[in-house]
Amino acid sequence: MAAGRNGDDALIIVMRPDATPGDLDQVVQRLTDIGAEAHVSVGQRRTVVGAIGDRTQIQQLPWEAFPGVERAVPVLTSYKFVSRDFQAEDSVVEVGGVPIGAGAFTMIAGPCAVESRDQLFASAAAVKAAGASILRGDAFKPRTSPYAFQGLGKQGLDLLAEARERFGLPFVAEVLDPRHVELIAGYADLIRIGTRNMSNYTLLAELGRQPKPVMLKRGFTATIDEWLNAAEYIYKEGNHQIVLCERGIRTFETQTRNTLDISAVPVVQALSHLPVMVDPSHSGGRRWLVSPLTLAAVAVGAAGAIIDVHPAPETALVDGPQAILPGEFAELMGQVRAVVAALRR
Amino acid sequence: MAAGRNGDDALIIVMRPDATPGDLDQVVQRLTDIGAEAHVSVGQRRTVVGAIGDRTQIQQLPWEAFPGVERAVPVLTSYKFVSRDFQAEDSVVEVGGVPIGAGAFTMIAGPCAVESRDQLFASAAAVKAAGASILRGDAFKPRTSPYAFQGLGKQGLDLLAEARERFGLPFVAEVLDPRHVELIAGYADLIRIGTRNMSNYTLLAELGRQPKPVMLKRGFTATIDEWLNAAEYIYKEGNHQIVLCERGIRTFETQTRNTLDISAVPVVQALSHLPVMVDPSHSGGRRWLVSPLTLAAVAVGAAGAIIDVHPAPETALVDGPQAILPGEFAELMGQVRAVVAALRR
Amino acid sequence: MAAGRNGDDALIIVMRPDATPGDLDQVVQRLTDIGAEAHVSVGQRRTVVGAIGDRTQIQQLPWEAFPGVERAVPVLTSYKFVSRDFQAEDSVVEVGGVPIGAGAFTMIAGPCAVESRDQLFASAAAVKAAGASILRGDAFKPRTSPYAFQGLGKQGLDLLAEARERFGLPFVAEVLDPRHVELIAGYADLIRIGTRNMSNYTLLAELGRQPKPVMLKRGFTATIDEWLNAAEYIYKEGNHQIVLCERGIRTFETQTRNTLDISAVPVVQALSHLPVMVDPSHSGGRRWLVSPLTLAAVAVGAAGAIIDVHPAPETALVDGPQAILPGEFAELMGQVRAVVAALRR
Amino acid sequence: MAAGRNGDDALIIVMRPDATPGDLDQVVQRLTDIGAEAHVSVGQRRTVVGAIGDRTQIQQLPWEAFPGVERAVPVLTSYKFVSRDFQAEDSVVEVGGVPIGAGAFTMIAGPCAVESRDQLFASAAAVKAAGASILRGDAFKPRTSPYAFQGLGKQGLDLLAEARERFGLPFVAEVLDPRHVELIAGYADLIRIGTRNMSNYTLLAELGRQPKPVMLKRGFTATIDEWLNAAEYIYKEGNHQIVLCERGIRTFETQTRNTLDISAVPVVQALSHLPVMVDPSHSGGRRWLVSPLTLAAVAVGAAGAIIDVHPAPETALVDGPQAILPGEFAELMGQVRAVVAALRR
Repeated sequence: MAAGRNGDDALIIVMRPDATPGDLDQVVQRLTDIGAEAHVSVGQRRTVVGAIGDRTQIQQLPWEAFPGVERAVPVLTSYKFVSRDFQAEDSVVEVGGVPIGAGAFTMIAGPCAVESRDQLFASAAAVKAAGASILRGDAFKPRTSPYAFQGLGKQGLDLLAEARERFGLPFVAEVLDPRHVELIAGYADLIRIGTRNMSNYTLLAELGRQPKPVMLKRGFTATIDEWLNAAEYIYKEGNHQIVLCERGIRTFETQTRNTLDISAVPVVQALSHLPVMVDPSHSGGRRWLVSPLTLAAVAVGAAGAIIDVHPAPETALVDGPQAILPGEFAELMGQVRAVVAALRR
Repeated sequence: MAAGRNGDDALIIVMRPDATPGDLDQVVQRLTDIGAEAHVSVGQRRTVVGAIGDRTQIQQLPWEAFPGVERAVPVLTSYKFVSRDFQAEDSVVEVGGVPIGAGAFTMIAGPCAVESRDQLFASAAAVKAAGASILRGDAFKPRTSPYAFQGLGKQGLDLLAEARERFGLPFVAEVLDPRHVELIAGYADLIRIGTRNMSNYTLLAELGRQPKPVMLKRGFTATIDEWLNAAEYIYKEGNHQIVLCERGIRTFETQTRNTLDISAVPVVQALSHLPVMVDPSHSGGRRWLVSPLTLAAVAVGAAGAIIDVHPAPETALVDGPQAILPGEFAELMGQVRAVVAALRR
Repeated sequence: MAAGRNGDDALIIVMRPDATPGDLDQVVQRLTDIGAEAHVSVGQRRTVVGAIGDRTQIQQLPWEAFPGVERAVPVLTSYKFVSRDFQAEDSVVEVGGVPIGAGAFTMIAGPCAVESRDQLFASAAAVKAAGASILRGDAFKPRTSPYAFQGLGKQGLDLLAEARERFGLPFVAEVLDPRHVELIAGYADLIRIGTRNMSNYTLLAELGRQPKPVMLKRGFTATIDEWLNAAEYIYKEGNHQIVLCERGIRTFETQTRNTLDISAVPVVQALSHLPVMVDPSHSGGRRWLVSPLTLAAVAVGAAGAIIDVHPAPETALVDGPQAILPGEFAELMGQVRAVVAALRR
Repeated sequence: MAAGRNGDDALIIVMRPDATPGDLDQVVQRLTDIGAEAHVSVGQRRTVVGAIGDRTQIQQLPWEAFPGVERAVPVLTSYKFVSRDFQAEDSVVEVGGVPIGAGAFTMIAGPCAVESRDQLFASAAAVKAAGASILRGDAFKPRTSPYAFQGLGKQGLDLLAEARERFGLPFVAEVLDPRHVELIAGYADLIRIGTRNMSNYTLLAELGRQPKPVMLKRGFTATIDEWLNAAEYIYKEGNHQIVLCERGIRTFETQTRNTLDISAVPVVQALSHLPVMVDPSHSGGRRWLVSPLTLAAVAVGAAGAIIDVHPAPETALVDGPQAILPGEFAELMGQVRAVVAALRR
């Protein structure tokens, strides 16, 4: 990798009021040793060192463990390839012939979990008719309680593949275990990393080494910076087909399952070239929130949405309270098209 | 106040596994004493008491301090008058002839703080021309640092009144001190309680006893339940003209000043009859976030937005980084109208 | 105020990759205009400006609103007088003859709210006997619900004054309204600003202009930086007798009422010369958490604790679930003394 | 598994004000179908159903997706075996001959990551001399940035085994990948699941199926309830040797790396029979916070602490800013012993 690719980084090192000249020298010497420039600003009470150089080198040193150092403030990000600095134009990710990030609003819909052939096909038929372009449905489910339904496994993947043929919809499915990556990559058009696995670096690296596109959901407790670093784990292994998906963060508010961070969409668009979608179903956790939050996602400029649609939510084995009915989905699709047209997106 | 007004409440009292029959009797007896019904459900390991009765009475007792009680789980809310249970139809609040909550999307715009006659008038002329219907501009500012600009005071109110005459725009201004309520109520068409004062019950009660409509911003660390309780403080003193305004909450994310809780709009609409607006300027804290967040507010169904517009943000004494320029505001108004039309709101 | 008192400040201004030389010039020019030094570091992709000068001047300018500026990162704090930079030695606050911050662990105890003469006196007698040195008891209570008990008012202050005489205990009481400051200052030995009013700048300034010592509780959603800025509001008006009190912050965890931020004690001690106490009762919200959290406060090095003690918690009008019984308090005091002795504090 | 083992559960189902009698019948019928009891409480405005029965059955149904249901409030927890309800007496976990949870305060110490033989041995010799009973040191490190040091792998485990022999200290090491479980279990005396993997259910289950004791760190964004559910994943696979470790949670406060939730110690002790330790190094993220936070952990009643000790923190490849020096550790051990003696723990 060429040095130029890394660009350069800036770190601000603030010395303590009681730091000695020797402490300052040690910091400056270490910066010089690693080939970085040190810009020293001496004030009345504080001395500040601006370090400019290779970010990997600078950020790895434990500056706050040096004598006389009060704080080290990173000025730039620790990810590179997924940043706008590295690539100015938008990335477009193609999923079974459907482009994500090319300007249209891409709708992914279907049941949260595959429960049976009837349930999956009823849902797939409905979302296809209403205009969705990708099917969702999981065969492996991560559950907070070990006693909850954990998915149909391989049988679920077979059903999803059958639905793809029947309805002409590529599909997305979640992976939980690095040992399942090959299996799922053999079936799915888009592999999803769920919110609980966003920091499972083992799994991220494995996804980076296979050819299918990846949807990386934001950890519900991850900062945007951590989320983009997780994307970097996939990208640097060679897989550049990454779609980000905001799905709500954990806050003190309990009226909603999570708090949809709608601002994350324009913020990520400013920081990264990767397309970013929204999951209004898992954010809110309630059926009647799905439509307003989806419309907000369209208006804010997201690349698409992924929505739980279930023919009979009160029988759902997973996340029934947030699934909308096929009729509600069709009505929502009409509103989505109207807002897209109004904003010429 | 008639008993019927309070409706009834439910509280679930969960007994500890080692609670004695005497502990259970004491709880049931106390409920009976205050005129509530006690429904006892005895399970294999836990006994649960459902209490139904007057909420004020039930919620005031310190149930978790009773021997043998593990937890008390409130089932209903502690506010009454501002709830949909109390009034099913939407409230409409009239501000100097402009209705808020009647179906249209109401735009309030202007500078964060009144700094000078020129600055205020340039901003007012621009927002009027672009289609705003209410002017914003503060004469008293709460600042985290005691060394920051605190506002022009009465002189600022005079300028606002002059702008109202000149441009035909009613105006909203913030109140910080209960001793200023009379002064500000003598000028403003809508009095705003800022996010830092949402739990200033002294100020809330004072606003409840004067005739001007009130905009109650959500505390940036308040739950929706606490916010509606704060509105109840105003309502119960006799002032029913209350507009709520979501303005972002404090979370772990630091890319934005606060995290706009866009879901709060439909949630509040489900729980309360009061109109709810959005402040995209203070939520995001960055100029380039204002347009996407405003459009999200329109799409999610908010009653309106309040936006900082400044003729020269780099000279602003308060919150310059989030103010948009008059030209940006005019362009945004065009998009707002397009989305409103698309959704027929 | 002499310039030297302000010390100097550093602000790091990060320019955008597409910033023009003119943008950079404008920033440097503005810094020069206000008498600050500008240290420009030009890197491969980013230019960074270090500004050193008077903090009040530098921090007030809206740098992020300047063309070409990506971010402005403050390096130092915005408060001054309450910082260790301003005064290196610990402040000691004297409350009715009892020093806080002089090395001993000061125990404040009593009922949350004054409910009656009997209740207050029973509590005061018990805490005195067990070794508390200051009495707590409020006459004015801020409540989330407008229908909850709001305190006895002036009658409560009279009872507190009577208890002071009878038991030889100075007392602390909360103030909610700037119009009550004179009244309460006429009675109490220590005036408390509660968590909901930490950002009520009107009230803070009023407390700064009267002679009684002030206990400033941390807002349950305030950062340590905001808390110290709130203390600065009081200090700069002339009242330097300030005791800080950590009382738990709002997090996603719901098993406790709030999350006691025990680390805030050593962090505040590093940043400020003011003494810092802990309120284990309101942090945890449960009786059985009071003893372990109090002992943690002793071990971590707090200047003292403030604890709710009630003779009959199941009849308490406010916060019964967290009040401990007189016998529990006596046992706790024995453990407190043992840990203090073990650590020679 | 016998039904009695599951105990019974309570779920409170709150009907909407506009629920029809048919809606209520459907809920009651479904409860009856799964063998649960339904206790119906009819109030003036709300009807509430208390469901008592097998928790696995009751909690899996999507009650909030039923027509007419407003909310479903779980009253008990979804974990079983790790709860105090299931086992009243404390569990003691033996690690290479060292008991954790038997009353003593167990100290685990050593470097964050194994970097070299010299670094590991210098640290191990120091912590052994000062009185630690278990060594820490990781061979695999999860890092937010893919460009940071990721550990020495198998070579690190060999060094740890050599240190165990040399210093007579059993050791704990982290596992990141389910495919490494067998390798690490062949070496370590205690296997740690780090904070980022607390919800990696695949990894949890794998650890549940091997014989070595497991230390489960709390996810820095996990509730206590989720943490205990994660422990349940391990326990139900057959491995009952589980030590919990609180290590700080993510909050809005940024002065510390995370906010140590000291209250979690007594809360977990009330809910579960598993021993709970504290990690003061990763909570605070700063060297000078380690001693006060460790003493707070002792005083609050934790079963032990795990501390980063490094002979030269300014050269550390991971987390240098929070490592303490051998001399600081020895001094801290003296204070720990004094507080333990004072509280007779």
